[in-house]
Amino acid sequence: MSEQVLFVVNQTEERQHELKKTYQQVHFEFYSSIKEVTSFADTTVLVTFGEDVTPTILEQAKDLKWIHVLSAGVEHLPFEQILNRDILVTNSRGIHATPMSEHAMWMMLDYVKRAQDYRQAQAERAWVRSQKPSELTDLTVVLLGTGAIASKISERAAVFGMKTIGVNTDGRPVHPFDDVVSMREWELALKQADFLINVLPATEQTKKILNEDAFRLVKQGAVFINLGRGNAVVEHELIRVLDNKHIDHAYLDVFNEEPLSSDSPLWGHHSVTITPHISASTSFYMERALKIFNENLSLFIEGKENFINEVHSKKGY
Amino acid sequence: MSEQVLFVVNQTEERQHELKKTYQQVHFEFYSSIKEVTSFADTTVLVTFGEDVTPTILEQAKDLKWIHVLSAGVEHLPFEQILNRDILVTNSRGIHATPMSEHAMWMMLDYVKRAQDYRQAQAERAWVRSQKPSELTDLTVVLLGTGAIASKISERAAVFGMKTIGVNTDGRPVHPFDDVVSMREWELALKQADFLINVLPATEQTKKILNEDAFRLVKQGAVFINLGRGNAVVEHELIRVLDNKHIDHAYLDVFNEEPLSSDSPLWGHHSVTITPHISASTSFYMERALKIFNENLSLFIEGKENFINEVHSKKGY
Repeated sequence: MSEQVLFVVNQTEERQHELKKTYQQVHFEFYSSIKEVTSFADTTVLVTFGEDVTPTILEQAKDLKWIHVLSAGVEHLPFEQILNRDILVTNSRGIHATPMSEHAMWMMLDYVKRAQDYRQAQAERAWVRSQKPSELTDLTVVLLGTGAIASKISERAAVFGMKTIGVNTDGRPVHPFDDVVSMREWELALKQADFLINVLPATEQTKKILNEDAFRLVKQGAVFINLGRGNAVVEHELIRVLDNKHIDHAYLDVFNEEPLSSDSPLWGHHSVTITPHISASTSFYMERALKIFNENLSLFIEGKENFINEVHSKKGY
Repeated sequence: MSEQVLFVVNQTEERQHELKKTYQQVHFEFYSSIKEVTSFADTTVLVTFGEDVTPTILEQAKDLKWIHVLSAGVEHLPFEQILNRDILVTNSRGIHATPMSEHAMWMMLDYVKRAQDYRQAQAERAWVRSQKPSELTDLTVVLLGTGAIASKISERAAVFGMKTIGVNTDGRPVHPFDDVVSMREWELALKQADFLINVLPATEQTKKILNEDAFRLVKQGAVFINLGRGNAVVEHELIRVLDNKHIDHAYLDVFNEEPLSSDSPLWGHHSVTITPHISASTSFYMERALKIFNENLSLFIEGKENFINEVHSKKGY
């Protein structure tokens, strides 16, 4: 019986055609949303962004053997059923490193170059040179996480003369960080941070770790950048350390609830810059994500293993 | 007779003290503006930002042997008198490469990451994900100039996966550009430009070279960044190519007249981002500029030559 691959992520006609041509033995079905699907009965492979797979759908998809997630976020998958039925899960981690490192460099430059002040001055038609920009050279960036994304940020920050410190579970050295400390000793890193960047995935261990106590450990006047997951942060406590200037500015791409409610105090806070969870977005996204899927699909059809980006369902990443 | 060094650029008390301690045989005078100086009669060395030295002052400074400019811009110096009297001129070129390359990377990231759109959305408390950011990877940046500043921008752009093309007088290859073309053939470069960055100094040859005809040679939809000198651009013709979208956006740090008049149409143009001639500004500026001056002062006192950054007064740079 041939594999039945169900896409619940929109694909252009060219991409659909390309897939069908490349894998002629596979039956493809394309939907732009999981809600449009009428039957999962014959589906053996599901391709999703990972936030729409419910336990009910898994029950209906009784022949499902593999879920490929076109993002990196797998925290919404029903892992209990997945483990029980030994369903393979792969994701698209790795392709986020390039756009997210650009996003991180953009945020750090936006801060030292006083982008907000100059846009304000332009709106007022005012030539204001009294406050000069500073420079990234010699500043220290602390990254929570030392995986592909954090490493790429570290690599690019180093080109700008920055010192980079990574924080991971056990403090094992990772290239290309100047220094790595363990989560248990993160105070050693936080107190040196001119920039603190969170790129940790959402797990039980990272929930609410960035509370007021944590922010108090960060060097006075530092900048916080969150590109990981919103639930790592206790938002009202972040606002408190921004209000009293312990943290000078926060660049937030992820939030406790998304979309961010229009009545959130974060929108109007002078020391907060908001982007709508787009740090991994790029004109190259789908091309790179499908490249991983295609390679895994070839392995899957041939009955091989060693999939790219297999997710360890017990750990959840 | 000891050297009489006159600073007409503000220096902190620490820096004044440090200079006096290091060069005890030298007599220093410190002013924050050339207008405060009552006599130039004994001055042998003048340290200036280069925009305030008039022919009258040079007549009064009859013993002047050396002008050190703490910026890179020497176009306002009275070169006829300087040549006649064989006055040494040195400047601070080279130290601009680091902050200006940061500024250039900031501008390019600001564009591909849609900074303007997201700030607007934040002001409206709107979570807008329909327009996604793109990426610098594979884009081409064309640099007018292949000196220290352009080279540093090229080096950093390459780290982001960009292709870099330099334009100089004779098209001689320069590291680290992927390609270099001559000014005579600049069309070959311009038509490939996703970003066009001007870092040329102000000379007679560069005046008004960026007119409507030139911008028409640039790839449709490109971004123009001016960090060199304002008089390279015919501003009302730039506005025309912005209005008809041939150039998608202009990031301007320098202008025909500075400060930019509050009634300039550039301030309110949706496709223009303005900074007030600060691309070379940095928290490290004076430290680095004085390092060059100090090294030259040591050579000058010892009667040596081979000064750092001697300006060829005939060429004007």
